[in-house]
Amino acid sequence: MKVLVINCGSSSIKYQLFNMDNEEVLAKGLVERIGIEGSILIHKVNGEKYDIKEVIKDHKDGVRLVIEALTNKEYGVIADMSEISAVGHRVVHGGEKYASSVVINDEVMKSIEDCVKLAPLHNPPNIIGINACKEMMPEVPMVAVFDTAFHQTMPKEAYLYPIPYELYENDAIRKYGFHGTSHKYVTQKAAEMIGKNVDDINIITCHLGNGASLAAVKNGKSVDTSMGFTPLEGLCMGTRSGSIDPSIVTFLMKEKGYSCDEVDNILNKKSGLLGISGLSSDFRDIRSTAGEGVERSILARDIFFNKIRQYIGSYAVTLGKVDCIAFAGGIGENAALVRSEVAKGLEIIGAEIDSKLNEAAAGVEACISTESSKIKILVIPTDEELMIARDTKELCCK
Amino acid sequence: MKVLVINCGSSSIKYQLFNMDNEEVLAKGLVERIGIEGSILIHKVNGEKYDIKEVIKDHKDGVRLVIEALTNKEYGVIADMSEISAVGHRVVHGGEKYASSVVINDEVMKSIEDCVKLAPLHNPPNIIGINACKEMMPEVPMVAVFDTAFHQTMPKEAYLYPIPYELYENDAIRKYGFHGTSHKYVTQKAAEMIGKNVDDINIITCHLGNGASLAAVKNGKSVDTSMGFTPLEGLCMGTRSGSIDPSIVTFLMKEKGYSCDEVDNILNKKSGLLGISGLSSDFRDIRSTAGEGVERSILARDIFFNKIRQYIGSYAVTLGKVDCIAFAGGIGENAALVRSEVAKGLEIIGAEIDSKLNEAAAGVEACISTESSKIKILVIPTDEELMIARDTKELCCK
Repeated sequence: MKVLVINCGSSSIKYQLFNMDNEEVLAKGLVERIGIEGSILIHKVNGEKYDIKEVIKDHKDGVRLVIEALTNKEYGVIADMSEISAVGHRVVHGGEKYASSVVINDEVMKSIEDCVKLAPLHNPPNIIGINACKEMMPEVPMVAVFDTAFHQTMPKEAYLYPIPYELYENDAIRKYGFHGTSHKYVTQKAAEMIGKNVDDINIITCHLGNGASLAAVKNGKSVDTSMGFTPLEGLCMGTRSGSIDPSIVTFLMKEKGYSCDEVDNILNKKSGLLGISGLSSDFRDIRSTAGEGVERSILARDIFFNKIRQYIGSYAVTLGKVDCIAFAGGIGENAALVRSEVAKGLEIIGAEIDSKLNEAAAGVEACISTESSKIKILVIPTDEELMIARDTKELCCK
Repeated sequence: MKVLVINCGSSSIKYQLFNMDNEEVLAKGLVERIGIEGSILIHKVNGEKYDIKEVIKDHKDGVRLVIEALTNKEYGVIADMSEISAVGHRVVHGGEKYASSVVINDEVMKSIEDCVKLAPLHNPPNIIGINACKEMMPEVPMVAVFDTAFHQTMPKEAYLYPIPYELYENDAIRKYGFHGTSHKYVTQKAAEMIGKNVDDINIITCHLGNGASLAAVKNGKSVDTSMGFTPLEGLCMGTRSGSIDPSIVTFLMKEKGYSCDEVDNILNKKSGLLGISGLSSDFRDIRSTAGEGVERSILARDIFFNKIRQYIGSYAVTLGKVDCIAFAGGIGENAALVRSEVAKGLEIIGAEIDSKLNEAAAGVEACISTESSKIKILVIPTDEELMIARDTKELCCK
């Protein structure tokens, strides 16, 4: 069966078509600048890249173009739209209702809409994408795969904030966690790699990209994660501050006269690696300028390492017993320096990196701990799209 | 030599008079409700308690009464004010300028005033108290002992927030940390207890009271602490939320229409144990109602434990090697349950509590770890006043 995976942003659509008989990616691509001048579809198949420049006025138009590309005589991979058995949609926020992926019906759509308040930037484009696909492919079953779902197993003492309880009951303020699809994929893959049943694995998963989060996974289930009510909490990220003293928010408003939106913008878009370095939100730039001795880049780098390390220490104690620590995401998969620096101090929990194995591992699955390390340290290229496709297949093949 | 220690609140003065030849407390007490109806001085000497009810119109009046009590024929302990060789003042915020205690002169006063912006609730009464003492005892040297000073040894990667660097440079937004006098006292005492030089000790100090903070201390120096720019950050406290997703602050303002002051009030006064339980900010009440099965008290208790445990894990990794973990403060010194629950999961860092020793330790110095524990676990009744008196003596005896 063939599954189309869709990830909609406010002016973009990312897609991948999988042959789920062998989990092969048949084609993938990206529609950009929807409704904006210069809209384009970039389609990739068999290592070839095709730029299709066309006016793309809305997401429905975008989805139509994606289907055209997939069925195109020259660069298409299927004869006909009917070959698509199901569509899996990435949906950022599923609230408390969804602890797993779900076939989309009217009730599900209503729930996703109810979560717009919790994810005002992310859920609306996801909804637009689902509707566009439904219009173009009315007969094809659609599945919603939530970024929050994997973390719904967190116990109350992990997901409740120590704020008035009514704010949880009435306003749904709690820790949700994100990147769940990635943490779940990495957990399953790690179990496979170390030869354990996924229900028996205790793992700390480190998804380190421009957005970054860690999860503490006990017996295959998320019991804590560093992102919270929103994706702002937790680690130092590309442009996000992560956790800071909450008093800083009101201090900035009172002392600097900023509005709520201005503070949100500072903490989400102008902080993190970019805020400290003043140079870039891209870890590669930070690493290279830090290597040249640029002081604020060194600082940004060290803060980034420090937070990851401290979260690993926290989660080691939460788990009590740790089978492995896995690094994933653009930075986690590729930057050996991050892994070796983060590992400093982890000897106290029994985790020891083998520097040669670490150096050699870039973008490929690898075990990089020493033979004597009590905790295996793994590199796992994450694959959220494949995870979405798997969930979609499972739900639509029943 | 005799040293008077003063801790001024907005309508109160706490005092202790020490004989620093043997560090004995000669008398101590509390002036309450200054400038408010029902003002009173409660004076304690040799186990006796004296209530002196009088109109106390301002802090100068209060200091005058304290001196009268100390020199009183019936319940006084000194013949004359001139026996007081120096006064040590607790000052909450010393900013970046003071990494240790200092004899107060005009420049120091100016610096303390400069820090009012950073500690608008705390530094003003501290200043009033210093001025009142200066007026009453113009010839006596005064020393400022800062809550922030001990943490001034933190490295930049620990004290900088990943927010725009200009907010540090121009607005002094950084982690300062508090309870420094207690963390310093506990560090010194722990070194003594385990027979190590204070410069060689790696310790995690847990000051757990109504306000609560942890510190990571490396070679006797603070390298990280859980309170931050203000005392709001970090652990779940009696009424304070500790760290939460900073987005919650703006969400509350946008969705609920709260002002900055209202949110500050919620997070500082209505959160923590009180917010979750809806019953009490006092850990003793939470423990007893949780013991009776009250669900939200169980939650409050478990959240409280969870955060402490996770910080210990973080700091273990930060330190790399840990000699001991010390519990101090009203809760840390007295609640065996807290220590035993917090210790769950700490086996991964090699810390193991001896339940019998733990049960037996209440409000006294004790080592409560098992023989085989790699990390010693200590109970240390903190004594901030003695620490202030020691610093004062050292600075004024030169």
